Amino acid sequence: MHFDPNINCPYASGTTAFGDVVLSSRARLARNLEGFPFVNSASVGDCEEVELLLAPACNCDDDFTLVWVDLHKLSKVERAMCAERHLISTNFADADNPRGVMVGPELARSIMINEEDHLRIQSIKPGLDLLNAHNDVMAMDQRMEKLVAYAFDEQLGFLTACPTNVGTGARFSVMMHLPALRITKGFRQLYNACEGMSIAIRGYHGEGSETIADLYQLSNQVTLGYNEEDLRSMLEDEFLPTVIENERNARMKIIEKYGAKLDDRVFRAQGILENATILPLDEAMDCLGRVRLGVSLERITNLEINTINQLFIDIQNGHLQWRYDGNLSEAELQEKRATLVKEKFAA
Amino acid sequence: MHFDPNINCPYASGTTAFGDVVLSSRARLARNLEGFPFVNSASVGDCEEVELLLAPACNCDDDFTLVWVDLHKLSKVERAMCAERHLISTNFADADNPRGVMVGPELARSIMINEEDHLRIQSIKPGLDLLNAHNDVMAMDQRMEKLVAYAFDEQLGFLTACPTNVGTGARFSVMMHLPALRITKGFRQLYNACEGMSIAIRGYHGEGSETIADLYQLSNQVTLGYNEEDLRSMLEDEFLPTVIENERNARMKIIEKYGAKLDDRVFRAQGILENATILPLDEAMDCLGRVRLGVSLERITNLEINTINQLFIDIQNGHLQWRYDGNLSEAELQEKRATLVKEKFAA
Repeated sequence: MHFDPNINCPYASGTTAFGDVVLSSRARLARNLEGFPFVNSASVGDCEEVELLLAPACNCDDDFTLVWVDLHKLSKVERAMCAERHLISTNFADADNPRGVMVGPELARSIMINEEDHLRIQSIKPGLDLLNAHNDVMAMDQRMEKLVAYAFDEQLGFLTACPTNVGTGARFSVMMHLPALRITKGFRQLYNACEGMSIAIRGYHGEGSETIADLYQLSNQVTLGYNEEDLRSMLEDEFLPTVIENERNARMKIIEKYGAKLDDRVFRAQGILENATILPLDEAMDCLGRVRLGVSLERITNLEINTINQLFIDIQNGHLQWRYDGNLSEAELQEKRATLVKEKFAA
Repeated sequence: MHFDPNINCPYASGTTAFGDVVLSSRARLARNLEGFPFVNSASVGDCEEVELLLAPACNCDDDFTLVWVDLHKLSKVERAMCAERHLISTNFADADNPRGVMVGPELARSIMINEEDHLRIQSIKPGLDLLNAHNDVMAMDQRMEKLVAYAFDEQLGFLTACPTNVGTGARFSVMMHLPALRITKGFRQLYNACEGMSIAIRGYHGEGSETIADLYQLSNQVTLGYNEEDLRSMLEDEFLPTVIENERNARMKIIEKYGAKLDDRVFRAQGILENATILPLDEAMDCLGRVRLGVSLERITNLEINTINQLFIDIQNGHLQWRYDGNLSEAELQEKRATLVKEKFAA
């Protein structure tokens, strides 16, 4: 397959803008082909035809490469891994209609074909960088437009399977680490502010997922009546800087007022990760979240924040199955997870 | 004062018999003076007179030394420390009648004056060694008998304040670490066997105390109708070897059947003790108990069992107050406890 899990996730290398609070920034465009029914009412033949029309995008001599990956040819583990990288959605990994994904070699760009919409074009950048994620998806969008005609309405804009995406079809989202806002009273305020701005707060795994490790995905919900650049700028230049500042202030307040308790929380989490031999996923994520706070506040100085960011991915079930090349039971996964974390922490 | 807390507790040095399961063995004799009311109905004058009669025992030129410690001259912290060493009872530490304790320089022998009985003579030995603890208390008993006449009845034996001690006045007890019996079903069986033999099972702090760290005090309850040597032998030579064997077998069974889970339990506890910066007493005791199991089964190889045994004492509130020379709040105690454990583990 054309998906190398040895490649680090894009937000686990280098120093990134606001990396203490923002893990990654993602831009996504939803597009559909004119003259074809939406995927939810499309026949197998329709889906295959859409694939055929779009596949040539992989053989372009543009300045970026896309590799075609047929979901049906991937193993269950490989599909899970793609979802764990957020290259594809979980629904897409488990669906059974004809579908595929075009993936950039750095595993940061992808285009899902025949997910909810015919095309879901996305790019993930480390730290707070919606601008470049947006540039990426615009470039991919232009390439696709040379091949096909999009379903577009003069009044409404781009037409999509779900009405919430009609208009620009654009969604901008950032994965944030907000442990201090959660601990302090700041979170209620954030919820209210988000509601007022039609910004959704979701868990690590997106829509409907539970909060884990204090990781939150913030994204715009409105796509109609704005242009893409306004949506991006509103989020990145106006809204998020305040959230980041509030989180940073809350961290300082915690250090000041509850420094001893913070250290206890943080070092205990490190102690569990360094010593447990059986690690359930939720507990591991939660402990990594605490350690991440410790690293970002320089209470823990023998670990890199990128090690944590990468582990958020590598300890997921699919990645563990792939790494240990096995058909591991849940009990075995918990043991391998503990082994892996210890290895990475000692490295 | 004549109590040096720098002296290690008697069961925290050297290799001891059955030290993997038995922390210490204690023999105790209850005695009262003829012609004096029991302490619960004695006047201050009576108590003082008893003290005066017995005090010369400290100036003997026998082959062992006893030092007189007046409880009223000890600080609250010092009294708490004596109780934490099991040199005196908690009731005795907190009482306000004239009372004192004679202490051997190794802090293993003591005679409480005016506790529940006029004399409570005791000796604590490391590991399973009731025989030598018994020899100790008999020697002390003989010394006291030279000074005073004991309340004694031809039919009943030695008379005591509480009827359960009438007869020999002897109690033999051992402090055992029984984590595997607790985890497996063996504990119910042990309870039943103890009941059949009139042996009491109590928590770490004796009568009425809760189980903590899987430490249990087993002691004879009957003192009437037997001679002391029979009581000791019944416990030490007949009953306890089976309990020890059962605990050891249960440990082997756990390793065999649940080795991975055992390691996880044990290493997590070590991880908490090595990393927490705030340690409540109960949690610290519990974690030490788990680590002790790990050490005794050689899952943990970088710690000595005596380090754990000594920490059971040193992390108690009185010992911490003394060590850090302060009037520490509960929060401060929890921090100092964490600091101390980390220090000792790293040593």
